[in-house]
Order: sequence, then C-alpha cells, then structure tokens
Amino acid sequence: MDLTRAAAVAADDADPLAGFRARFTGTDDDGPDRLLYLDGNSLGRLPVDTPAAVARVVEQEWGQGLVGSWRDWVEHSRRIGDVLAGGVLGARPGEVLISDTTSVDLYKLLVAAVDARPGRDVLVCCADDFPTDRYIVAGVAEQRGLTVRQVEAHIDEGLDLAVLAEALDERVAVVVLSQVAYRSGALVDVPEVTRLAREAGALVLWDLSHGAGAVPADLTASGADLAVGCTYKHLNGGPGAPAFLYVRRELQEELRQPIWGWFGQRDQFAMGAAYDPAEGVDRFAVGTPPVLAMAAVEVGVRLTAEAGIERVAAKARALTGLVVDLADAWLAGHGVTVASPRDAARRGAHVSLAHPAAWQLTQALIDRGVVPDFRTPDRLRLGPAPLYTRFVDVWDAMDRLRAVLTEGAHAGYPTERSRVT
Amino acid sequence: MDLTRAAAVAADDADPLAGFRARFTGTDDDGPDRLLYLDGNSLGRLPVDTPAAVARVVEQEWGQGLVGSWRDWVEHSRRIGDVLAGGVLGARPGEVLISDTTSVDLYKLLVAAVDARPGRDVLVCCADDFPTDRYIVAGVAEQRGLTVRQVEAHIDEGLDLAVLAEALDERVAVVVLSQVAYRSGALVDVPEVTRLAREAGALVLWDLSHGAGAVPADLTASGADLAVGCTYKHLNGGPGAPAFLYVRRELQEELRQPIWGWFGQRDQFAMGAAYDPAEGVDRFAVGTPPVLAMAAVEVGVRLTAEAGIERVAAKARALTGLVVDLADAWLAGHGVTVASPRDAARRGAHVSLAHPAAWQLTQALIDRGVVPDFRTPDRLRLGPAPLYTRFVDVWDAMDRLRAVLTEGAHAGYPTERSRVT
Repeated sequence: MDLTRAAAVAADDADPLAGFRARFTGTDDDGPDRLLYLDGNSLGRLPVDTPAAVARVVEQEWGQGLVGSWRDWVEHSRRIGDVLAGGVLGARPGEVLISDTTSVDLYKLLVAAVDARPGRDVLVCCADDFPTDRYIVAGVAEQRGLTVRQVEAHIDEGLDLAVLAEALDERVAVVVLSQVAYRSGALVDVPEVTRLAREAGALVLWDLSHGAGAVPADLTASGADLAVGCTYKHLNGGPGAPAFLYVRRELQEELRQPIWGWFGQRDQFAMGAAYDPAEGVDRFAVGTPPVLAMAAVEVGVRLTAEAGIERVAAKARALTGLVVDLADAWLAGHGVTVASPRDAARRGAHVSLAHPAAWQLTQALIDRGVVPDFRTPDRLRLGPAPLYTRFVDVWDAMDRLRAVLTEGAHAGYPTERSRVT
Repeated sequence: MDLTRAAAVAADDADPLAGFRARFTGTDDDGPDRLLYLDGNSLGRLPVDTPAAVARVVEQEWGQGLVGSWRDWVEHSRRIGDVLAGGVLGARPGEVLISDTTSVDLYKLLVAAVDARPGRDVLVCCADDFPTDRYIVAGVAEQRGLTVRQVEAHIDEGLDLAVLAEALDERVAVVVLSQVAYRSGALVDVPEVTRLAREAGALVLWDLSHGAGAVPADLTASGADLAVGCTYKHLNGGPGAPAFLYVRRELQEELRQPIWGWFGQRDQFAMGAAYDPAEGVDRFAVGTPPVLAMAAVEVGVRLTAEAGIERVAAKARALTGLVVDLADAWLAGHGVTVASPRDAARRGAHVSLAHPAAWQLTQALIDRGVVPDFRTPDRLRLGPAPLYTRFVDVWDAMDRLRAVLTEGAHAGYPTERSRVT
C-alpha cells in the first residue's frame, strides 16, 4: 500500500477484524490527540466484557455461592485451557492448562523434560532469549549438574537454524526457545526446530509468550511436545494473569513435574497418603487455581478465538509491515534502523526500531500520547495489537515519532533509566 | 457462659469485633432461615470493599492506566506483604511477600532450606499434615535423594512435641509443619518447635495456612525462620488468592530459591545476562505477580490488621469453645465426639466433630442452610470465622445439627462422596 494517511484509512475500512476494536475499552476516542497504544504485546488492553465477568465471579460466585462454587471452579483451569487449545494454539482438548506463571510453568516442564531424558547432560537455550527463560534454564542446570549451551542469535534477525543445529547432539536433553523473540519479534520455525531436536533425541520446550494470541502456534501440526506462555499480552487476560502450559497428549503419562501440589493429585479430595499424579494434563497443576484472575483470562482467550488466529496474524503482518515501511521512508534519515526481520513471514506481531537515544524517544513519545516499549539497550519496540489497533493508529504514531525526531524533542529527556517496566 | 440462645446473644452484644460483621457481604439477613456459613477456614467471605477495589484495578489501573500502572504494581507483592507482616503475622517489614500459591512457595522455601543445610539428608514432616505439605516434601525428597521421616500426630490432639523431638537429630535438614492442623485445628507450639529444631541444627518451614488471620503467628517473637500460608481462608482474599511467604531477615542473604524467574532478579529491567538474585525478600519472587488477585488480598489483609489479630484469636477461642460445649451437651448422645483439643489454648479457629456419617451430615446441614466442611474420613469441620460469625450463628448452626441428628434426616443422603471440595 502507499504510505499516505488516506491509504491507512482505506486499509482500516477493508479490515475484516475492524469490529473487534469496539470490544476493548479506551478505543472510542477518535480525536487527533487520542492515546496510541502500541504496547499490547507487553500488556493487552481491557476487553469491554471483562469488568462484568470479573464482577460476576467476585460478587455472585464468591460472594453468594461461597465455597460451593468450587464445584465449577475446580474445572476452570482445564476448561479455559481447552478453549485456548482449540481456538488459539492449534492443540487438542486436554493438552492445555491455565496454571501458575510462565516462569513457574517453564520450571515445571523443564524439570519434567530433563527427567524424561536421563543420561543427557546439556540444556540448549538462546543467548538473546527473554531473561526469565535464560534464568530458569540456568537454575535447573545448576541444580541438576547440567551444562548450558547458549546459542547466539542475531539480535534483529533471530535464530539461524544452522547455528542451532550445530548445538544439537546426543548430549542435549532439552532445548528451550521462544517462538517470537521478545526484542526483535523474529519468528522461529517451530516445525523445523522440532524436527531438528527430535533427530537429536532432545525435547523442545517452547515459550509462546511473545506471540500467543497474535501468531499461530499450530502445536499439533508442528509436532510440538511442550510449551508455556503468557495470557496478559496478546491474549488480553490482565496484568499478571496466570500462564498456560501445553503438554502433547502422548507425552503426558511419561512426564512428572517436580512440584507435587494437591491440585496435581489423582482423586484430590481423598487426600491420600502418597502423591499419585492425576491422569492427563491435570498432573501439571500444583496449587489452588486463581479463580478471579481466570475470569479475565477466559474473556481474553474467547475474543481471540472468535477473531480467528489466522486473521489476527495476517493483520499483524500488515500492521508491522506498515511500521517497517514508514520507518524506512521517514526515519532512516534520523538514524533509526529497523531492528526486526523485513520478511513478514519471519516476524511476529511487533517491530523494534534501533536508535541510540531510544530511551529518550520512548519518554518523548509517551508525552505525546504514544505508548511504545523500551528494551535495553537501544530498542524502541512497537506492538500494534491486531484486535484493537488500526492502520491509521500506526500511521499517526509513526507521524508523532517523526515529529519528535524532526524537532529533536527527545533531547531534553533523561538518558538514564530508573526502574520502570 | 451458659448454653442458652440468650447467652449467645448476650455474648454478641459484648463482642468488641461485632462491627466487623457488616464489613462482609451476605451478613445482613438476620432471619431464622439465614445461611450459617461455618467454612470461612476453607474460603473466607467476600469483604464489602472488595468488589470496588477489584473494579478499580480492572477498570482504572488496567483499563485506563494500561502498562504505565506497572510503576505501582511492581511494588504490590512487597507492599501488601509488609501490611500482612506488621498487621497480622508479627513479622518485620521486608520479610513477607505475596507470591504464587502456597504449594509453590512451600517448594521454593523447602529447596532453599535444604540447600542451606548441606550434608543433611532427612526431611521431617507430619503424617497427618495437609496433603500438599506431605506431597511437596515427598517430591523434594525424591528429587534430592533425601529420606522423609513422617512423625505421627494424634488425629484429634495434634502433634506431641516429645514425639517430634525424637525425630530430630543431626541428619535432619528441614522440618515442615502446619501451625494449625487442617482437620482437628490443633495448634502447635511454634517457639518450642523452633527451639527444638534449632538445637538439632535444622530449619523449620511453617505452613500457616489454616491459622493465618485467626491465630497469631508471632513470627519474630517465636524466632521462626521460614513460613508460607494462604490468604483465601481467614484472610478473606478470595478463591485461589495468591499465597504469602516469610523469610526471616537474617536468613535472606543466605538462601536461594530454585525457580530463577525474572521478578527475583536484581535490577530486573536491565535484563542482565546472568541470574543474580535481588536483595531481601524480593529474591523469593519468580514470575509476574497477579495484580487483579492482589487487590482482593489487600482488602482482606487490611481488615484483619484493623481488627487486631489478638482480638480475633480471642474470639476464635470463645466461638470454638461454644461449639465444643454445645457438642458435649447436645450431640454426645447421638454418637458425635469432639475431635479437636478441648484446651482453647491448643486450638486454632476451627473444630472438628467426628461421626461415622459425617459426609451424610454435611449434606443434610447444607440443605438446612449450614455450610460446614467435610474432611475425610469422618470429620465434620466447623470454622466460625471470628470477623463475621456471631455466637448466635454458632448456636443456631449447632441447633440445626441437633435437629438433623434427632430426626435422623441425614440417613437419606448418599454415603459415597463424588468429587467436590
């Protein structure tokens, strides 16, 4: 498409997902000074239906139903997991559970996977992966006396599969990888990595956090064995919403996770003497599930399932493509470079722009009503969430960024960052 | 007090905590058929202020503030932890964190404690402890090649410290114990156990779940080293609310928990290459904290702090004393025996009654508007939460139980239990 604002408006008019924008709060202001929220990949917007769903659980199910409501609640982790499995992740019923945090789920599945590959003493992860992934791997390695092989990835282009292949041999127990790189948005080829790892006899544990809800995971089709992910980004489940975990059906019986809590026990309320893991995906549960938070997760997951993950992903490619094209056309002369794959098929739902003053630009943009994200050391990350971001929102945000750079307005902001997200 | 209904009404009139009842929803019905909720030790009632507090976080902080609200949220786990520490648990600022579930927190602190006692190969727990405590201990023992010594406790009277003392020697790394037994409500002497364990060189990890908010923990005064606990029972934080963990300040630097998530990292948003645990209690955090759920926890914790834990505990002793006295006076002839310590100083905030048809009695009571709890195999558990339960509520509930037994109304109910809480 051409790079005029009119072309962006026309793209919105033709957008089959346009109706979903009104399903999110804060999207009704259409004025020139409106907030342009490009950080849905960090914290998704609030769906219009969520306050009532949460209030119903709080006031009716808890307030009125009291402890009797556990008859329903006890199934929620799996029930919402099934909606996520079938509607978003391309997995089968009984393979996905809403549970704990992404970090705790990573730990659980990583230890389970290590135990399923006895005699192997190497964990593979990516040197540029999100911190919690690298730290969890390092912690399990230290505790189990394993060696970590960190594969270098290109900071903008992502992982080269030839480099990964070199790291895979008969010593490797588990590979931990993000499907979408948190900084660049670079996409990894899940089926191909799965094939490479399987050839080497290793399991792959996927972190889907940065793509879940905006990029198809196709877990069954890709042959993926294990995955975890986040529901508060593109799945719009709310701040600190519980995570999900996926274990391929055929592997469930074989795997045992290390945190033996009562919600993972077979016939839990018999309160038997010895731990005996439940059948199916329930054995990966641990403690009492977060009922209030799950009400918000359910609304978010159902919205994405309703929109259709393939349509969401197609719009994500088009929106991020517009960011790339505008950056090239308008910002290259100001020292901004595109720090994400230019090939839309290799890109998730966000784009990073590199600039030495990225932190100052972030602050200047926030003051002009654009919410991007900063990622150390010099990346401005823009995540135009497809369910509620229009092409014209991207155009206007890039226009404000162009104005900041043209005026040099960012120069007045602090260069040192204090503790914020 | 005498056992007339009038005496119960008089006790309510003299109750310094009487005003707190109106701070909970569902307490305004004062008719003869009103719901008598005696399961606040399983799931506490909804505080009147909670719906608005949750709605504010959902609609304003998330819906309007979006990702910028993390500037405040990032501190909530510790901030609410400090309120709980000072107002309820008798601990110091910086010693308590709201985090994960009780089961996950138990695992984290147990592994940390094991690592702090190298060369010791025994874990001690109680054979009659709550399932998740026993299972977590068994799991860590299996993973670390440790031996579990299960100390037998009297099912009604709780743990005999002489029996515990026999299990403690130089091989013991960690003792895991509940302050209040989940079935009988028997109270363990925290300072004395702490002293015994310390003599043997072992650490004690307390599970405060069944007493927190109704029984003083006095963590600093008792010299306790480690504790975890639940906020959805007597702390009224909502179904599946996040748990708390406590680590004595002097131990924090020495301990390292095993799940190396990004919220436990020093200077988290620098996203450094290697895991470097944060200072203080933050190092026991793992993943992104559950913001919506914490809003409900805060209301509950503040209510208990405002009431004063000593006053709450005094009323708990009086309410459970009335259960015991009425059971003796009215129900002994029907085969009901008191299955909790008769000495109020050795009792938490709930009482168990033993009867061979306890499960049938539970169902009959629910149909008559009394909510007790059943605990396998033959225990009817009554938890008259002091903040919102009156003496006359206990009197009426026991009266309804007497009527069920007198009429034999429970005989028509199923004897087999399907899966419920």
